[in-house]
Amino acid sequence: MSGRGRRPDPGLESRVHGAALELYGEVGWAGFTIDAVARRARVGKAAMYNRWESKDKLIADALTSWLSKSLPPSRTGPLRKNLLDMATDILDSYLEPKGLVYLRAQVEARVYPELFGQALETFQRERIRRGRAIVLAAIERGELPGGTSPALVLDALAGILTNHFLSTPTSQIPTLLEHKTKYVEETVDFVLSAVGYRAPGP
Amino acid sequence: MSGRGRRPDPGLESRVHGAALELYGEVGWAGFTIDAVARRARVGKAAMYNRWESKDKLIADALTSWLSKSLPPSRTGPLRKNLLDMATDILDSYLEPKGLVYLRAQVEARVYPELFGQALETFQRERIRRGRAIVLAAIERGELPGGTSPALVLDALAGILTNHFLSTPTSQIPTLLEHKTKYVEETVDFVLSAVGYRAPGP
Repeated sequence: MSGRGRRPDPGLESRVHGAALELYGEVGWAGFTIDAVARRARVGKAAMYNRWESKDKLIADALTSWLSKSLPPSRTGPLRKNLLDMATDILDSYLEPKGLVYLRAQVEARVYPELFGQALETFQRERIRRGRAIVLAAIERGELPGGTSPALVLDALAGILTNHFLSTPTSQIPTLLEHKTKYVEETVDFVLSAVGYRAPGP
Repeated sequence: MSGRGRRPDPGLESRVHGAALELYGEVGWAGFTIDAVARRARVGKAAMYNRWESKDKLIADALTSWLSKSLPPSRTGPLRKNLLDMATDILDSYLEPKGLVYLRAQVEARVYPELFGQALETFQRERIRRGRAIVLAAIERGELPGGTSPALVLDALAGILTNHFLSTPTSQIPTLLEHKTKYVEETVDFVLSAVGYRAPGP
């Protein structure tokens, strides 16, 4: 330390990213400002503008960093267990403070493709790649018929959960949580029966 | 006409509602102002504030009126045909200028339940009631096994389409449209096979 100027703040970047995502989840792009992120992260404006030249760069940065950490793990083992874990992760992700970020960014990518498109497409491509591997491995093991469409299986699982979460009145969210395990099983079994799943032998 | 003051403007309400929904779809709640709606609808501010005391009232009004006109018709006849029509309507609704309104309002109902909750819940309740009637009639006709969950069928259909629409990069939307009929059929048949559908005899 030189004694002159400020000490570098090693936690700054992750604190700012966290604040940026939380704010974005609450208000969306139209309410997103560097100043509001600075206040929420308790970071001086000078430090903010020094690091991020625009709010476009800030949100793209925060999204990319968050999404790269949000990728589902590469899973192995029986298909039904994999899908149960995946479904639980999806439902849980909606219920954390940053839960609306992904949905908002998907909606706003339609309005501002240049802003959200790249971060989302990179994430979605990789997520589909990992989901595809799970479905293809299940076909190889004989748990699913050959020719099963991985995209349809993954769309169905994520879609049913997303739609259900969004259609549940806020006052009913605690009830949804209470029955989470049962609801996740029902959803996974619905998807599995659509594609002619055969449970592996003992 | 008295010759004094302005002529009443019979199209004002629907013009303002349309402008309010379009603006809301583009920018969401944080970017929504009475002044911006007034400019877009080419209506004087005085007339706006005279009719709507706050932006909360304006969006609630516009949403309620639009959603009440967006309810799916009560359908009769073979289940597969009903679901194909329903799926086509859902996909089409995303591609019109107001297409993001419903998704945005669902997301923002989590942040501002008092603002969006009521309009959405009324709509969703009635939509579920109509969808339920379709599934129950199909059970009665023997097209679906007894005990089929109407909620799961409807969540699955809407969810798969929504998720697919949101995950499609904006640049790929024209391709999605080009294959719309095939994609809708694939989705409906996926849902039907999940619930053990039996096509009605000739």
